[in-house]
Formats: sequence, C-alpha cells, structure tokens
Amino acid sequence: MEQNCIFCRIISKELPANILFEDENFLAFHDVNPVSPFHVLVVPKSHRTDLKQYCKDDKELLGDLLLMAKTIADENNINSYRTVINTGIEAGQTVFHLHLHIIGGRTL
Amino acid sequence: MEQNCIFCRIISKELPANILFEDENFLAFHDVNPVSPFHVLVVPKSHRTDLKQYCKDDKELLGDLLLMAKTIADENNINSYRTVINTGIEAGQTVFHLHLHIIGGRTL
Repeated sequence: MEQNCIFCRIISKELPANILFEDENFLAFHDVNPVSPFHVLVVPKSHRTDLKQYCKDDKELLGDLLLMAKTIADENNINSYRTVINTGIEAGQTVFHLHLHIIGGRTL
Repeated sequence: MEQNCIFCRIISKELPANILFEDENFLAFHDVNPVSPFHVLVVPKSHRTDLKQYCKDDKELLGDLLLMAKTIADENNINSYRTVINTGIEAGQTVFHLHLHIIGGRTL
C-alpha cells in the first residue's frame, strides 16, 4: 500500500467509495466523476503505477482484470461498454495506480 | 476464420494492412482511420466477436493482449497511451472481431 495513493486508501477502506465488487485481488467501485451513466473503475489491490509496471508473470491478473469488466457489465445489465486503461499523464491518467474504466449506459 | 470479417481477412493476408507485429496468437497493425498520430489495433487471430465471448479459460490470452500494448508502445517510443476495447455498437465497436486499440502520440 502507498500511503499517498487515493486508490490504496479506498482499498484499505480509509476512504469511502461506492463499491460494486471485491475479492482477493480486485476492488471495483463507481467513478466519482462519471463520464457516463455507468462508469466503474476496477483496480488491482496491489499498488503498481501503470501498465508499464506489469510483465509476463502478471498475464493472468491482467486477463482477470478484463474478464472482470465483462462480469460487472453483465451483472449490471450493461450490454455495450468501453473498457479503457490510461497509461501516463498525456493519455489522461490522473491516479497513478493501474485502473480499468468500464464506461457504458449511453451511446459512445 | 469468418469470411465476412475484415480482420480475419487481414490476418489471412487476403486484405493488406500496415503490420507492426505478428506471432502465433496476435496480429498488430495501424488503424486505417487513426484518431491520433499513433493508433494501432491488436487482434487475437482466433475469431470471436467481442469480450463477451471470452471466459476464464482465456485469461492468459487476454493478459497477453494487454501486455502486447505495453510492448508495442515501448518499441515505438510511445510513452503515454490509451488502451481501449469497445464491446457492442453503442460503445463504438465497428468491427465485430475483438480488438484492442492503442492510442497515443498526442495529449488525450
């Protein structure tokens, strides 16, 4: 856990969030600044800044991250959705703890 | 292979594309309608419509798909990038063969 990371503090329940799903490896919660009626973030619980810090050993974890989008969309009756990972400030990354956006509920 | 699928026809080399990378499981090529100076698509060679057709057994393949974005961005000196998978027409999916967009080369 990184004390200055807002997502680590949500994972540790030090900060509140509207949580949809939690297991050993991931936490999913509603984005506080949604760009769409359905906008959920899925974060691995282990702190790593971005995709650059992941390697071949992490492929199952990254695969599970994408499959989580499918499961969460299904469970919330979201039929069409966009999954996004931003890597770096120029790409729009604002929190430096890897997270997957699930964006749906409107035409994109 | 699906005969009516444009990506299957690129994979089989029946249609041309500006290919960046190819291995047993994936093909990566430049998007013909780029939204950014760097806009590459990575497609699994096996035809499946979208993320909904993937399951737990595919998690290594999906993890490799995300890691491929990291590798391709690195090799092309793209420091910041967005990775996107659209699922369904309303989410902006236009070709119904799962593909990952890697978008970079400008501020997003």
